[in-house]
Amino acid sequence: MSGKNIVVAQSGGPTVAINASLAGVISAALNNNYYDKVYGSIYGILGILNDNLIDLTKKATDNSDFIDTLKVSPAMYLGSCRHKLPEYEDDEKPYLTIFEQFEKYNIGAFFYIGGNDSMDTTLKLSHYGEKIGSDIRIIGIPKTIDNDLCLTDHTPGFGSAAKYIATSMLEISHDTFIYSVPSVTIVEIMGRDAGWLTASAALARNEYNSSPHLIYFPEVPFDKEAFINDIKQQLTVRNNVIIAVSEGIRDKDGQYISATTATNDQFGHKQLSGTGKSLEYLVKNNIDIKVRSVELNVLQRCASHQASLTDINESFELGQKAVDFSEKGHTKCMLVIKRVSDDPYTTEIDTADISSIANKDKPIPREWINSSGNDVTDNLIKYMKPLIEGETAVKYKDGLPIYLPIDHLDNTTK
Amino acid sequence: MSGKNIVVAQSGGPTVAINASLAGVISAALNNNYYDKVYGSIYGILGILNDNLIDLTKKATDNSDFIDTLKVSPAMYLGSCRHKLPEYEDDEKPYLTIFEQFEKYNIGAFFYIGGNDSMDTTLKLSHYGEKIGSDIRIIGIPKTIDNDLCLTDHTPGFGSAAKYIATSMLEISHDTFIYSVPSVTIVEIMGRDAGWLTASAALARNEYNSSPHLIYFPEVPFDKEAFINDIKQQLTVRNNVIIAVSEGIRDKDGQYISATTATNDQFGHKQLSGTGKSLEYLVKNNIDIKVRSVELNVLQRCASHQASLTDINESFELGQKAVDFSEKGHTKCMLVIKRVSDDPYTTEIDTADISSIANKDKPIPREWINSSGNDVTDNLIKYMKPLIEGETAVKYKDGLPIYLPIDHLDNTTK
Repeated sequence: MSGKNIVVAQSGGPTVAINASLAGVISAALNNNYYDKVYGSIYGILGILNDNLIDLTKKATDNSDFIDTLKVSPAMYLGSCRHKLPEYEDDEKPYLTIFEQFEKYNIGAFFYIGGNDSMDTTLKLSHYGEKIGSDIRIIGIPKTIDNDLCLTDHTPGFGSAAKYIATSMLEISHDTFIYSVPSVTIVEIMGRDAGWLTASAALARNEYNSSPHLIYFPEVPFDKEAFINDIKQQLTVRNNVIIAVSEGIRDKDGQYISATTATNDQFGHKQLSGTGKSLEYLVKNNIDIKVRSVELNVLQRCASHQASLTDINESFELGQKAVDFSEKGHTKCMLVIKRVSDDPYTTEIDTADISSIANKDKPIPREWINSSGNDVTDNLIKYMKPLIEGETAVKYKDGLPIYLPIDHLDNTTK
Repeated sequence: MSGKNIVVAQSGGPTVAINASLAGVISAALNNNYYDKVYGSIYGILGILNDNLIDLTKKATDNSDFIDTLKVSPAMYLGSCRHKLPEYEDDEKPYLTIFEQFEKYNIGAFFYIGGNDSMDTTLKLSHYGEKIGSDIRIIGIPKTIDNDLCLTDHTPGFGSAAKYIATSMLEISHDTFIYSVPSVTIVEIMGRDAGWLTASAALARNEYNSSPHLIYFPEVPFDKEAFINDIKQQLTVRNNVIIAVSEGIRDKDGQYISATTATNDQFGHKQLSGTGKSLEYLVKNNIDIKVRSVELNVLQRCASHQASLTDINESFELGQKAVDFSEKGHTKCMLVIKRVSDDPYTTEIDTADISSIANKDKPIPREWINSSGNDVTDNLIKYMKPLIEGETAVKYKDGLPIYLPIDHLDNTTK
């Protein structure tokens, strides 16, 4: 019994699995004698800076369904932020505030559930904590639909997004194949720098469905002429060509195909839109055929009604393990999933030094994409397949999924 | 025992419920002594014209899961078409072919499962059958996600699309509310002339979610200035404004807001795209705020993984009743659903003269939209609510829904 408390925050873009990790933290803390309370920081690290914390232990003890419902609710229960901490050498002020807050709330461990940018914050807090000799455990819990964090076999959130994408791709195939009129359908999928999500569309293939017939990744330079030729070739063997394309495809000079609308966000990432639409016009201008583009948009990251049970269970377990590892003294680390075997699919959870992870990319290995750069290989299918397995037990009321109310966020009034 | 056979076809745009009606037809015919076989016409009426029929009775007896899987599979198992028959006074040829085919296959009843355009075909075949003194029963089975067929309380397919839209709207709300940064999110929903589907977004409202905060319908002339003022007003009371908008909104002169890309299809309907996108730009040009548009696109009509059990069961029953009614001699009609009560929700199935239905619209009654024209009234909510109730028992394999293979359609080779 340390008598200390935990503070946990969520940050970056939403996933279907990020609340499962939060539920895992609360669940483990309730069943553990080492920590007392779990506080939730509202709007990521900003909640600590602005003294906006809620008592999650009380929420969970007041409502016996809290943890189970949280586990299957979309996006961030605690809200998110896109807030980049300065280097402490440049501006120590936010660090002083954060560690004062840690003292005020008697914090023994800080967990940041997030993607690459959140691991940047985790790294900076770890460095500062080390500098001032703090014994507060600082641990990153990975989540990103993009699956682009290093050292972990995959990231929580990816499996559920992949399941939604593959399901939607299968349903779009049924929708498309009903007409005998030749057509091209382009499905735009998220993934700024890594094509993992786009690749997951290939999981829709089965004994009667060979779509997506072509797949284009950010990892391979996009060539407009080759793209048109690929489609023409497909049209010699089938009526309806269905294409999966990443929002992040770039030409050989690194220019986004949708570059006209690209702007930079706070972390210097390009904000994209319209890749599918611009390819739709490209096809229309080059081939006399019916063309449609579909953008899966935010639904691929928030459709909790179609989450992967494997993903949700792993995310929950990561949250639980964060509590265990912090109790054992682990800090300055991120939890990682290690794959033990593909079939049967088994994994172990470990920690890795946060400095080896933050601000690094993990693109698809080139050998997992075919030589023409327009399809996945079997290795990639084998890697992804177990991650979409199983369905969660979302409960329904009045025909709609029951998710946890988020009326503690500033969504109704200013 | 008539010894006669049934031929059934599906046409128009896909829905999640159109195969449930087909399953109902096959199921009732198997359990009925009056009819012998059920033939399926591939690609709507074209299958009859081109002698492309399959034996559905054999499919169902060869595979014990056939009917149950068909019931929950998306789009048209038999394929679809957008084929308009000429008036027989202008060109009798296709009618001669169709009725020759009916004779060749010993057809006692023809069922056309479809929307407004399919009912036009049903009406024309009814007229021609009457003229030549045919005793073949010709019956339309309604389906359209748009819910715009007359005389029926609602159309099969609408409830499932509404459930998908409301679920997605709820998930988009969770996705949106996580940021404290003010934003406007525009969700574009299908519905060329009727706003029923757009209205269904309002079913996402619950004790913590008041979104969609604004709804725009084809039934009410769209005014750009009022739209911008509506948003500004919403932004005085909340940070994140979420808007549901129909693809078919028009200004007071009847011009589509996305008119630049509108073209006519074979039935003279405008093909639209980009309403949400054009409103996104409109907001960007008038309010300094983060704006995003999401187009639900084809997923709202083919996402069988999120179908309404009420809708699927009703569609199945309509298919069964078509067999019963035809046996009793009903013809030149469409099946209709009559609502007996809202709570408990109960309905009856009846027939209505096809000539009172085909080529007519059913917009939302003006009194079911608020006086400002930017929201639904409680009556409309009460009408829609029972239609999304219940979840279907879709089975899964390898993490994806099991649907019926459609490899009898020309989707893999020319």
